[in-house]
Amino acid sequence: MTLDFRQAAQLLRERDGFLILTHHRPDGDTIGCAVALCRALRRLGKTAYVLPNPDATALFDPYWGDVLAPADFQPDTVVSTDIASESLFPSNAEAYKGKVELCLDHHPSNTGFARYNCVEADKAACGELIYQVITQWFPVDRETALPLYLAVSTDTGCFVYSNTTPHTHQVAAALMETGIDYAAVNKRHFRTKSYTRLRLESRMIETMDLHHSGQTAIAAISLQDMADFNATERDVEDIAAVVGQLEGVLTAVTIRELKPGECKLSVRTGDHLDASKVCALLGGGGHAAAAGCSVLGSVAQAKSAILTAIETIQNQGKSKQ
Amino acid sequence: MTLDFRQAAQLLRERDGFLILTHHRPDGDTIGCAVALCRALRRLGKTAYVLPNPDATALFDPYWGDVLAPADFQPDTVVSTDIASESLFPSNAEAYKGKVELCLDHHPSNTGFARYNCVEADKAACGELIYQVITQWFPVDRETALPLYLAVSTDTGCFVYSNTTPHTHQVAAALMETGIDYAAVNKRHFRTKSYTRLRLESRMIETMDLHHSGQTAIAAISLQDMADFNATERDVEDIAAVVGQLEGVLTAVTIRELKPGECKLSVRTGDHLDASKVCALLGGGGHAAAAGCSVLGSVAQAKSAILTAIETIQNQGKSKQ
Repeated sequence: MTLDFRQAAQLLRERDGFLILTHHRPDGDTIGCAVALCRALRRLGKTAYVLPNPDATALFDPYWGDVLAPADFQPDTVVSTDIASESLFPSNAEAYKGKVELCLDHHPSNTGFARYNCVEADKAACGELIYQVITQWFPVDRETALPLYLAVSTDTGCFVYSNTTPHTHQVAAALMETGIDYAAVNKRHFRTKSYTRLRLESRMIETMDLHHSGQTAIAAISLQDMADFNATERDVEDIAAVVGQLEGVLTAVTIRELKPGECKLSVRTGDHLDASKVCALLGGGGHAAAAGCSVLGSVAQAKSAILTAIETIQNQGKSKQ
Repeated sequence: MTLDFRQAAQLLRERDGFLILTHHRPDGDTIGCAVALCRALRRLGKTAYVLPNPDATALFDPYWGDVLAPADFQPDTVVSTDIASESLFPSNAEAYKGKVELCLDHHPSNTGFARYNCVEADKAACGELIYQVITQWFPVDRETALPLYLAVSTDTGCFVYSNTTPHTHQVAAALMETGIDYAAVNKRHFRTKSYTRLRLESRMIETMDLHHSGQTAIAAISLQDMADFNATERDVEDIAAVVGQLEGVLTAVTIRELKPGECKLSVRTGDHLDASKVCALLGGGGHAAAAGCSVLGSVAQAKSAILTAIETIQNQGKSKQ
């Protein structure tokens, strides 16, 4: 059953014994939403906890506070924030499949897996929806505003991505007015890079191949690169953005060698080329502007394969003209 | 004489024949403010132009439209936007020194050089002030909202710098609601880097020296680096930010070799160290968090000199404890 945010706020008012779920490989939006909602429910006088997320990185350590559920907590009402489908549950939430009472989300692809689903797909961040729910009860305080600011800022790259809307900025303004240290959040999430990350980016830039008069860029991170800098998964998060920012590049490919003889490819394109068609030629898929695929082979073989795929789709486009 | 934004709006209503000045080495704030104010004054029925700025780079080409003053334009009322003092006038505005009727600005250091001065130092961008002035007359339209969005976003690094306030976000939301293509502005100014710039950044990272257990980073761009990548001044703009983002670094130094035997140094520090004291030892100055100086010598000599200066000030701090 579908609810709007007012109905969701009313439903939460009527229940108690809350456990809030976040998605696997959690980001600032799912964590910020869960923490903020938990604190607001407690302010309503409810018992509320967030299920610990085994995938959470140290980047989000400052935000959890005292919301994490003890191992023996038995919830009456399970709520999910920023989770599009049950396949995205973290490993320790298997037992809650089919048992979510209320799903609060902003993904257009949401499967409607809960008993009640409140999905606002026009919101850049799920945090905007949680803000609307909470302000049905009372104005946000600092304790809820900080994790909501984390949610809204991280899902928009600090208001730079094209998903950002006037509503995103209005919510940010209201959150900031509570007196939170938003500058610290911005510094931590948008103005800080590890030395390892910076060296990996440098290696990518220096070894990048440019084709088609500079309109196609193919960069790679090999297992050797990872070893050279003692890099971990944290250091390569969202690293495809590095090639995507290159001026004049219309097609940006980032290759990661996952193990010897296997590479994962991320392809980002402008309007001129359908990335999902390019990746489909190599058994992958995705969206028109961003897609992915795997290639069994070396980095050099992956580069060659994706370049051929790009040119095949480009030539198909031309033959139609 | 000091005016608030309502009085400034009233003054502008009473005058005509406007020429609007921008500051030398113009940025998005001064250009966006001048273009927006010019369009709004024309909407009021006034004759208004912006003085062409000889330092303006191609980055801002999309924003000028039809506002540039013809060479023979004789203004009745000269207005300046985002200019803190007459020393910041561009070279072709010398004749207007002592003749500015209204100065609209947000710099705390504003010298009050105009007949009427409207300075709001709590605003992150002068664009926020111009928005307040224009909305005294009518709601902003798309034509004024786009340059104002440029102003507000560029002066805050797209809402990430610590100068950003709730008001900044409120103004951004109102501007975006007019239907402007803010995503294109964000892409152009915050998500695009030239290949040359990326290669310069990579070279800096790879040749950077770390001291004091990684808390001090000293990076340099030599004349050879500039030549290797055919780099221009545009490619090194704000390049000191590269070192400043390094995780764990408290003192970030960026050295630029300006000519053989002469280096310019930029020093950024946290609360633990006064950058202006460090730079004063080498004949420079600035603020506690960001200062600069010059060293007559090679890049290696400049590195050695600034490291000694940092350690001298650090040891003075310790001896006081």
